[in-house]
Amino acid sequence: MSQLERPFAVVLAGGVGSRFWPASRPERPKQLLPLGTDRPLIVDAVERAVALAGPERVLIVLGTHLVDPVLKALPNLEPANLLVEPEARGTGPALAWAAHVIAERDPEGVMVSLHADHVIEPLDEFLDTISRGVAATGGGRLLCLGIEPDRPETGYGYVRLGAELAPGVFAAAEFVEKPPLETARAYVDSGEYLWNSGIFIWRAADLLAAIRTLAPEIPLERLENGEASGFFEACARVTIDVAVMERASRVGVVAASFGWDDVGDWNALRRTWPTDRDGNIVFGSVDLVDSGDNIVWSEDGSITLFGVHDLVVVRSGDHTFVTTREAAADMKRIFEATDSPEEA
Amino acid sequence: MSQLERPFAVVLAGGVGSRFWPASRPERPKQLLPLGTDRPLIVDAVERAVALAGPERVLIVLGTHLVDPVLKALPNLEPANLLVEPEARGTGPALAWAAHVIAERDPEGVMVSLHADHVIEPLDEFLDTISRGVAATGGGRLLCLGIEPDRPETGYGYVRLGAELAPGVFAAAEFVEKPPLETARAYVDSGEYLWNSGIFIWRAADLLAAIRTLAPEIPLERLENGEASGFFEACARVTIDVAVMERASRVGVVAASFGWDDVGDWNALRRTWPTDRDGNIVFGSVDLVDSGDNIVWSEDGSITLFGVHDLVVVRSGDHTFVTTREAAADMKRIFEATDSPEEA
Repeated sequence: MSQLERPFAVVLAGGVGSRFWPASRPERPKQLLPLGTDRPLIVDAVERAVALAGPERVLIVLGTHLVDPVLKALPNLEPANLLVEPEARGTGPALAWAAHVIAERDPEGVMVSLHADHVIEPLDEFLDTISRGVAATGGGRLLCLGIEPDRPETGYGYVRLGAELAPGVFAAAEFVEKPPLETARAYVDSGEYLWNSGIFIWRAADLLAAIRTLAPEIPLERLENGEASGFFEACARVTIDVAVMERASRVGVVAASFGWDDVGDWNALRRTWPTDRDGNIVFGSVDLVDSGDNIVWSEDGSITLFGVHDLVVVRSGDHTFVTTREAAADMKRIFEATDSPEEA
Repeated sequence: MSQLERPFAVVLAGGVGSRFWPASRPERPKQLLPLGTDRPLIVDAVERAVALAGPERVLIVLGTHLVDPVLKALPNLEPANLLVEPEARGTGPALAWAAHVIAERDPEGVMVSLHADHVIEPLDEFLDTISRGVAATGGGRLLCLGIEPDRPETGYGYVRLGAELAPGVFAAAEFVEKPPLETARAYVDSGEYLWNSGIFIWRAADLLAAIRTLAPEIPLERLENGEASGFFEACARVTIDVAVMERASRVGVVAASFGWDDVGDWNALRRTWPTDRDGNIVFGSVDLVDSGDNIVWSEDGSITLFGVHDLVVVRSGDHTFVTTREAAADMKRIFEATDSPEEA
């Protein structure tokens, strides 16, 4: 795409990723871990954002406590690349703020909202798909990026495709959150449903207009007074899906077929990392004897497994954590039962 | 028993107990861990030895590297209580040396050979049983202590009872090492077999005479020159069972019914420690969520288990170790496959 058409790229770098506890924790969340490649997820994500938007048009939304670690991981960033949230209120207020900043810089500016913790490849297919979406923005149209599913994942949201609006861009006929397995299977088989990736494309001004009309819990007038901390304080905690996408009428889906993973829990490593010949995924100093299909993450010491299968074993800092691959998908259960950190 | 009848007590404190790796390691072997009560096994063992023999007649056989930790755990010991092996050559040479030292002090001295890592209770029943054995020594008779089995343990040696020689003391008709499960079941059902505890009772002079006749791999003449290091160097590595007990004719068994455990691997804790209501055994800082029948040992940090069962999880020093309760009985397999410390 030409320089003139370049969108802005917003990288959401808020959450903790508590399903990777104890490797992830508030001061070192998931996006700072090398879960996709041998670099922290956020380094790969920002590199994609720069490839898409150029370094000056990348905005990273994050909390105060992450400024130092993110600047350390990405030393080429400028302070102007960072939007430091005074408090976390979910993706609704975060994207409203980013859209406001972009619209002030360029009233016609197109904005692509990305996540710091997604694994995406290959880059060129990603850029082509986004480009197709950028070309279809305008006129109030709000686009989400839908991923062709390769399995009946029950942890994702799905979007049903309606009429084709532009090449590879469809009306969003229906959003469905986390369907049961049988339903998910039927969706995948039908070919009519894509995963809702949480990646969005829109003109910043169109998002702001939609918020003004549809989302009273995000009081934009508080931003227009130039006061971000007052704005966040006045916002409800709300996702952009609930505040806008599920309420808006001109919602579309850009169909994508590149490799995408939201690295939701330890099991994701089996999709993004190579395994040894016994099906084990290993990080750090690990010895395996008669053990298969385990995911083992070792920092600050060594881990030895003997005669075990389908486990997740993590040693990080003062904590050692042992669970099954199955239970690893349901980590919330731990935070209900112990003092361990909740998802921010 | 009266002061005059008091035997000498020899406590063997040599081995590493590598099946408790990584909690046990060469510089901190099993007997220094609190695996029976909340005190190191050796503290309980020496306390029993003192109750049996009096403090001056207790001899602890150990390696140089254990002198400091043992004196730290047992500050009341005198240097005269320690027999420091110049090198480890198994129980044969160790007990030959101890018998020699005892016979020099008292040519009629009776010697009870104990282990630093056994769990035994109650004390009075232990003392009564030993007393019965001591009374049956003399005339070249070598006694082992046989424990009434309460399960078909395949990891132990068994001894079949012959004719009754004295009250509760029988001729040893046959020794059987580690029988298969079906055989072990038949032994337990028969009532004719006891576990060979590895605890022995004999006049020191009788053991020395037997060694002189039966065990050329233990050249006692090297000791008679007063030179322990030359003696150990000249000895083969051999157990007292192989060198003497299996070759001697006048071997007896003292039948014992006190509680006894050789704390052979992590599973032993399920016999000696209390469990929580989900069947877990816990040492140190441990959180358990939806987890049962695990054995969890945490030093230098905390361990969280979520949704797992029948595991053994150990964190000690730089090492974290995860195995199943079943595999924990077969730890030798690890030392074949990795660089971890072998049993000394």
